[in-house]
Amino acid sequence: MPLVDTAAPFVVRDLALAEAGRHQLRLAENEMPGLMALREEFGPTQPLKGARIAGSLHMTVQTAVLIETLVALGAQVRWASCNIFSTQDEAAAAVAVGPTGTVDAPAGVPVFAWKGETLEEYWACTERIFDWSGEAAAAGADFTGPNMILDDGGDATLLVHKGREFELAGTVPAAEDGDPEEWRVILGVLSRSLDASPDRWQRTAADIQGVTEETTTGVHRLYELARAGELLFPAINVNDSVTKSKFDNKYGIRHSLPDGINRATDVLMGGKVAFVAGYGDVGKGAAEALRGQGARVIVSEVDPINALQAAMDGYQVAKIESVIDQIDILISGTGNKDVVTVDHLLGLKHLAVVGNVGHFDNEIDMAGLEAVPGAEKIEIKPQVHEWRLPTGRSILVLSEGRLMNLGNATGHPSFVMSNSFTNQVLAQIELYAFRDRYATDVHVLPKHLDEKVARLHLDALGVELTTLTPEQAAYIGVEVDGPYKPDHYRY
Amino acid sequence: MPLVDTAAPFVVRDLALAEAGRHQLRLAENEMPGLMALREEFGPTQPLKGARIAGSLHMTVQTAVLIETLVALGAQVRWASCNIFSTQDEAAAAVAVGPTGTVDAPAGVPVFAWKGETLEEYWACTERIFDWSGEAAAAGADFTGPNMILDDGGDATLLVHKGREFELAGTVPAAEDGDPEEWRVILGVLSRSLDASPDRWQRTAADIQGVTEETTTGVHRLYELARAGELLFPAINVNDSVTKSKFDNKYGIRHSLPDGINRATDVLMGGKVAFVAGYGDVGKGAAEALRGQGARVIVSEVDPINALQAAMDGYQVAKIESVIDQIDILISGTGNKDVVTVDHLLGLKHLAVVGNVGHFDNEIDMAGLEAVPGAEKIEIKPQVHEWRLPTGRSILVLSEGRLMNLGNATGHPSFVMSNSFTNQVLAQIELYAFRDRYATDVHVLPKHLDEKVARLHLDALGVELTTLTPEQAAYIGVEVDGPYKPDHYRY
Ligand SMILES: NC(=O)c1ccc[n+]([C@@H]2O[C@H](COP(=O)([O-])OP(=O)(O)OC[C@H]3O[C@@H](n4cnc5c(N)ncnc54)[C@H](O)[C@@H]3O)[C@@H](O)[C@H]2O)c1
Ligand SMILES: NC(=O)c1ccc[n+]([C@@H]2O[C@H](COP(=O)([O-])OP(=O)(O)OC[C@H]3O[C@@H](n4cnc5c(N)ncnc54)[C@H](O)[C@@H]3O)[C@@H](O)[C@H]2O)c1
Repeated sequence: MPLVDTAAPFVVRDLALAEAGRHQLRLAENEMPGLMALREEFGPTQPLKGARIAGSLHMTVQTAVLIETLVALGAQVRWASCNIFSTQDEAAAAVAVGPTGTVDAPAGVPVFAWKGETLEEYWACTERIFDWSGEAAAAGADFTGPNMILDDGGDATLLVHKGREFELAGTVPAAEDGDPEEWRVILGVLSRSLDASPDRWQRTAADIQGVTEETTTGVHRLYELARAGELLFPAINVNDSVTKSKFDNKYGIRHSLPDGINRATDVLMGGKVAFVAGYGDVGKGAAEALRGQGARVIVSEVDPINALQAAMDGYQVAKIESVIDQIDILISGTGNKDVVTVDHLLGLKHLAVVGNVGHFDNEIDMAGLEAVPGAEKIEIKPQVHEWRLPTGRSILVLSEGRLMNLGNATGHPSFVMSNSFTNQVLAQIELYAFRDRYATDVHVLPKHLDEKVARLHLDALGVELTTLTPEQAAYIGVEVDGPYKPDHYRY
Repeated sequence: MPLVDTAAPFVVRDLALAEAGRHQLRLAENEMPGLMALREEFGPTQPLKGARIAGSLHMTVQTAVLIETLVALGAQVRWASCNIFSTQDEAAAAVAVGPTGTVDAPAGVPVFAWKGETLEEYWACTERIFDWSGEAAAAGADFTGPNMILDDGGDATLLVHKGREFELAGTVPAAEDGDPEEWRVILGVLSRSLDASPDRWQRTAADIQGVTEETTTGVHRLYELARAGELLFPAINVNDSVTKSKFDNKYGIRHSLPDGINRATDVLMGGKVAFVAGYGDVGKGAAEALRGQGARVIVSEVDPINALQAAMDGYQVAKIESVIDQIDILISGTGNKDVVTVDHLLGLKHLAVVGNVGHFDNEIDMAGLEAVPGAEKIEIKPQVHEWRLPTGRSILVLSEGRLMNLGNATGHPSFVMSNSFTNQVLAQIELYAFRDRYATDVHVLPKHLDEKVARLHLDALGVELTTLTPEQAAYIGVEVDGPYKPDHYRY
């Protein structure tokens, strides 16, 4: 696609995909009871009326349900994806057309996202979610940008902070040798912006009441900003809600890891030796799924506490090199780099399946594999490659070492995302409607809201909750309606 | 037994049990690798040399290994149980005789504990662990009491705080109508103490450098004291080490619950419907054990987060009254009261098994059951009673509604307790040897020590830990040797 047309009201791959997208949205809505319950509860009172939300989060079917929930609660929304590959084009089209619009007369949300953006396109899209001139003109108002950010990974937040910083400095620094390509692109965007307006990001930042952040990386950046005293507005760390981190990572992977292996390889997992590197939440879900399929699972860990948990859960715990020649399925889920080295890859059994559910593609040393003299890469089908190795053996690498549960399957299922996104919506309401409660710092959602998120997902599963009697509540020192646990409770 | 003879160097049921106790200690030592590793690591440097530890914790075989570890690290110790029923008399005898003593020439630790103490005896025993006059005389020193407390439930800590408070007030208050029996006993002890010395507890309190507390209840009391500004010395909350709470409660119950059902009833669990009230750590362990035996497990919860976890783990979640007529095995593990009511008991299937692993006997309404007109109690064997109900059906109640994993089986196994107690010893070393690091407040053990506890238990399970490369450690922002996780990490 060309660079984003700054006049276009939205930019998606193909509006004709909207109908297919709408079907998927309808099915997803049934699996996202938390979001649908919020529409019912808050639709009438419109707590997000007046909110202008700039959203930067994977433009998937599930995110489409999130977006339309925000709109149902009164918000105006502009949206970009937070990853160049993660957009589902039919979901983007459906959101642009909107539930009441048509392909000829789209009446949805301004969305700027398609699968396979270049870095330039990506940051141009991100910039567009901050350009509310059309909305301002339509409202006869004089705002420049959003008054809320909904972020995943912190790119939208970064743009505001850096934009304002460079405006105050009066200049955008030149990229230096060794700066990552992406940083050059960002500097380019901000430099053009500074040429066009000396105070656009200052005005934007001043209007923003808060950001709600979805994921670890973004949260990490926010804490750094707060520590440095540079955070410009209050933030809610959605990632560390129990109903996010203890559900998304564990139960999401448990679902999508075996799905990815099946779709990619059609290889039986039962009876095989599966190796899972890392026994955090992702590793726990991966190991459970593989054991559930009858595989014998071996785990590796560097943290003795997680290692002991794995042992107590009945898994062999070993270094990868100690068992490499037994492994049929090798899964890495640590968030670390070089967990699977070229030596490991060379030591695997013939046609062992290798997949990453942890983080970047450096979790498995793909660069090293490509550099192995004589190694030959054969595409079996997209995202599934046989690597013929000089050892005479082959291995099957999924999604080129990138997240295979996304590349070979469809990633987190709607029900899991409903938990995460219900946290997002509640966090948006908190920061927008109760802004006085939150100082300019990084907060987690109060526990009663975390519990509310869980509550909204019980009926769909046929769960019947017990209610405390007042005497029981007093006896254990809580209110009948919660919160039920101290903050340090680990679940 | 008579009230504790204040001249006796120790009081146990029967020294002749020492040999049987020593056999059990030897076997337990093999299952307590953490404690044995500490003996090896710290034996030569004697970090507890000079420590005079007053210990109040169930006088079991596992505790005996703890006591002898403290001694091996240089401490002097006096010990009482923290529960009138929990002493294993052979363990107490073995500790009194000591590894090098004989029944005729005991050379162990002054222990004041036997199974089945009265409340008067219990508090007299607790008072005796604060009487270090013999040790002072032997050392030609002028101390009165201990300089450290190792507590489980907070009774020892309470005695010092209340003793000092009443001395400062110049009088011990009279018990009031409605005060629990136990409080009367405590007031009696402190009143006699005040008659004998106007400042004994003040001198004792002044000498104490810290307390390490084992369990929830005691920790709760400590936080209350700290909040009220009344805490007299630093405290370490051992309970909330990950290697305590996430291991002890969950894996301990997973072991001892089915064990108790088997020893008590010899009833097959497979295929039966088992109901578990509560899905905290105890409930998670209970449900896993029952599912592992092939039972169909139904869970109840009041906390929607835990309820959703149970559902995601594949359990039906229901109110007890909705499924009462399906239940073959009813287990309560909430820590709450009246979880199982008389109506529930009357609605159960014929000869359903009823057991409590949660807390006090009021978790199941035993008082109500006893008051049912026409109900008849038949002892099948000790701790196993058939209750013939007016409905024409019977139920089997384990341990009279008290903790059945202790009453019908042997409670937490040594390996689990090794984790908890290794935390205890490290906490004692911290407060005794590094007292300057700890203000008068309630602390948890630093994470690197929590990780150390886990580390010391890996070899025994054949776990092979992976080591981070310096590059990997830098990449995820930790040191190669840990700590590996932020404090809020939930495991
Ligand atoms: N694929 C997905 O859809 C998906 C979903 C959620 C999270 N993630 C990513 O997965 C990664 C793990 O997430 P998590 O929640 O489990 O984190 P976590 O911190 O709970 O677990 C990671 C574990 O890996 C261990 N580890 C680190 N380096 C290791 C090494 N070299 N060898 C063995 N073990 C090692 C750590 O000790 C830790 O216990 C993160 O990067 C996260 O962003 C992916
Ligand atoms: N038997 C043993 O050997 C043993 C060992 C460890 C702990 N415990 C005791 O077990 C109890 C539970 O410990 P835990 O670590 O699991 O605590 P926890 O707080 O993790 O779990 C208790 C759960 O029970 C739920 N609950 C409370 N009232 C309820 C009700 N009326 N109906 C259904 N669910 C209800 C709570 O929401 C909570 O999730 C505590 O009293 C603890 O002292 C016993």
